[in-house]
Amino acid sequence: MVAIGIDIGGTSIKGAAVTPDGKVLDVFSLPVDKNDNQDQTIDKLIVVLKNYLAEHHYDKSNVLGIGLGIPGSIDSPKGIVSYSNNLKWEDLHIVEKIEKELGIRAKITNDANAATLGEAKFGAGKEYKNLLMVTLGTGVGGGIVIDGKLYEGNEGKGAEIGHSVIVLDGRPCTCGRKGCLEAYASATGLIYDTKIAMEEHKDSLMWKVAEKLGKVDGRVAFEAMRQNDKYAKDVVNNYIKYLGEGLMNFFNVLRPDAVILSGGIANEGDYLVTLLDKYCRDRNFGYNCTPEVKILISKLGYDSGKIGAAALFF
Amino acid sequence: MVAIGIDIGGTSIKGAAVTPDGKVLDVFSLPVDKNDNQDQTIDKLIVVLKNYLAEHHYDKSNVLGIGLGIPGSIDSPKGIVSYSNNLKWEDLHIVEKIEKELGIRAKITNDANAATLGEAKFGAGKEYKNLLMVTLGTGVGGGIVIDGKLYEGNEGKGAEIGHSVIVLDGRPCTCGRKGCLEAYASATGLIYDTKIAMEEHKDSLMWKVAEKLGKVDGRVAFEAMRQNDKYAKDVVNNYIKYLGEGLMNFFNVLRPDAVILSGGIANEGDYLVTLLDKYCRDRNFGYNCTPEVKILISKLGYDSGKIGAAALFF
Repeated sequence: MVAIGIDIGGTSIKGAAVTPDGKVLDVFSLPVDKNDNQDQTIDKLIVVLKNYLAEHHYDKSNVLGIGLGIPGSIDSPKGIVSYSNNLKWEDLHIVEKIEKELGIRAKITNDANAATLGEAKFGAGKEYKNLLMVTLGTGVGGGIVIDGKLYEGNEGKGAEIGHSVIVLDGRPCTCGRKGCLEAYASATGLIYDTKIAMEEHKDSLMWKVAEKLGKVDGRVAFEAMRQNDKYAKDVVNNYIKYLGEGLMNFFNVLRPDAVILSGGIANEGDYLVTLLDKYCRDRNFGYNCTPEVKILISKLGYDSGKIGAAALFF
Repeated sequence: MVAIGIDIGGTSIKGAAVTPDGKVLDVFSLPVDKNDNQDQTIDKLIVVLKNYLAEHHYDKSNVLGIGLGIPGSIDSPKGIVSYSNNLKWEDLHIVEKIEKELGIRAKITNDANAATLGEAKFGAGKEYKNLLMVTLGTGVGGGIVIDGKLYEGNEGKGAEIGHSVIVLDGRPCTCGRKGCLEAYASATGLIYDTKIAMEEHKDSLMWKVAEKLGKVDGRVAFEAMRQNDKYAKDVVNNYIKYLGEGLMNFFNVLRPDAVILSGGIANEGDYLVTLLDKYCRDRNFGYNCTPEVKILISKLGYDSGKIGAAALFF
């Protein structure tokens, strides 16, 4: 038996058959044409899926279901994409449509939730029961796994972990609130702070690093810090403080066994984990007499979404 | 069948038999003698329990179990009180002791968790599956119920919802962090802000209200606001902002169906709910396209702890 896991992105749709022990088989993909409306995109996906299933001799006798991870606001219990800014989809009854056309059960979840479930079941988190994934990219996303299962909240709209205020009346956030974790701990937030420090310190090594990379991105301050630039060190230490305080908030509320970091900034790997772990350890992981929370880096990379979408059926 | 629910406090221990539909029968209580050590206190409780069970003809044939809600840091899976500042208990293997002496299964949880489970199953939250209780007293405590069951986190040390930072580098909190929700949204935080405003505005009606009450407590600003005092209005509006931002953080992360407010400040009832609901509603409950979270006031009062402790067996 397998489940089909599909990861829908803004430019392409990627899928695979996934075995119940997390092996990825028979990958496929198709581009998303920006000129197509939502029905045209789904129709194309269904054609590809029909051919894919036939070619690999998959049908409802050996496929547990088709899981899809979709960016945006997803009503997973109802199987409806409420709204996807990225894809320009709205009120799309995608589960009903796929089940009708293919005769196989379907489930959907938010793309960040899918990636979280993939990492939790088969990646960095497979030894843990309760965990949190925090994705440090353009924004701060993530997901929550409780007792080995995805926790999605009412109408599947929970786990918006980037949108929790840590600085009252702080920086404006894309969500309309002020001072959200996302505004400070995303790559966007880090780049903002990096640029300010560079403007203030024309002698900083960050200028050289940025020149070499061809741009100011989330790597600049980390790389210049490793080269002992004191201004970069301030930028990174502030970043660790923002992220560390945000994580300790989640630790105190959810006290998970582990947190998995993913996204661009998580590419700093052990260097990031060591700094964060020290920050939290010096503060008792947020609270007295509490068990420590393992800080981990994601392992599955781009496969996590596909694997996690399939894992909705495991 | 019943379960015995016991609420352990700093000055007294209160218990009752509770039916699976939440009815409280045959209450009992005993004082806690500050001079007793932890073993002496438990020995006295066991004597009282033995007599109580015999008197009411309760035994393992008609008692599902004995549940206890205990203030402090509780390792519920292991049945151990790790540390209770209030009771001066440490590393107390209370479940093992009760089970051995009484021959009836026992379970423990933190007192705030017990009250949350009581309210969730039989009080204000009984129509909802996923919910949060926020207790606005000396501190800010609470609990989390997911899918009708208490979520306690690793070693039972989660749901420390008062200890999440909303003001980075803000007021010192009792936990050692700075800027926790507790430092602003507890009765203690409100009283602190009330006193500052009173000192700054000697003509405020808050002085009269405080004189009538004989002290400055959490009611002063609310009462003076109802009498149209503009300084009190500022204090309360700031309080609503602190609490509202804290609640919206939880809404975005957990997206529960409802939040139940309890503790001293929750006695403001509908007046408090109306202000908070408007604050959150004006901000779309924190995030776009999300279902609203019902804001409710606790219903069971002092019974919630006993009922919830018993409900560990329902």
